[in-house]
Amino acid sequence: MAEFALDPILEQDTVAIGELDLCSVRLMNDARFPWAILVPRRVGVAELFELTRGDRALMIEEIALVSETISQGTGSTKVNVAALGNKVRQLHVHVIGRTAGDAAWPKPVWGSGDPVRYAKGAAEAAAAGLAKALQVGVKRNVP
Amino acid sequence: MAEFALDPILEQDTVAIGELDLCSVRLMNDARFPWAILVPRRVGVAELFELTRGDRALMIEEIALVSETISQGTGSTKVNVAALGNKVRQLHVHVIGRTAGDAAWPKPVWGSGDPVRYAKGAAEAAAAGLAKALQVGVKRNVP
Repeated sequence: MAEFALDPILEQDTVAIGELDLCSVRLMNDARFPWAILVPRRVGVAELFELTRGDRALMIEEIALVSETISQGTGSTKVNVAALGNKVRQLHVHVIGRTAGDAAWPKPVWGSGDPVRYAKGAAEAAAAGLAKALQVGVKRNVP
Repeated sequence: MAEFALDPILEQDTVAIGELDLCSVRLMNDARFPWAILVPRRVGVAELFELTRGDRALMIEEIALVSETISQGTGSTKVNVAALGNKVRQLHVHVIGRTAGDAAWPKPVWGSGDPVRYAKGAAEAAAAGLAKALQVGVKRNVP
């Protein structure tokens, strides 16, 4: 049975936040937005409907948890949630805190300008802050 | 207790497909894409995390049902699922069938060109086809 591996593009664009029961949670390296990505640790899954029903129930709860954490922790006035996957097929769900006046508002973030990379160490610090709020650890054992 | 009412902008941009247990399902009037919108019949909800846990379980199942139906019925090679809500706060989830070479591929559909309205009667016909595939009826009694 093939082992789960994070898509190399997702790996490159993000830093680790931690592990929930279903998903690896990552921080997008774009300082313009508080932007997490949830990647279910399942092999060969591109669509939500390809997850089992049990995994879907976990998925929506983990989306809600990360959404609410970002909303409360950053003062974002809206959370955008999206599973697109036109470029990277591995199922991944964007959870992005949005606020009137942010770099793309009111447009979606994709295609609205170029990413602004975090300063050295700042992405890891932001990821650690979110991990603490989510009460997850990067080193938590993955089932 | 306030009664659920569809946001007027969503009402204007879409035609009815039918009613699932939680959501009203609508067809976006944009012939470029097979594009449904799911709107939970709940008052004052803007975020997925504001739904109850039970409603979230329904939500993800209805998203999966509509996604798989669009995928199988249209030959789309990817389904985009998104809850944005920067302009219309009423919680609504886009489910959009995508195919390499479509009018926005590989970009997200929002902001990629202008909508192409269906010809007279064609949106209703497309909605009826999707309703049949979903085995829902527009006139089904709403709890």
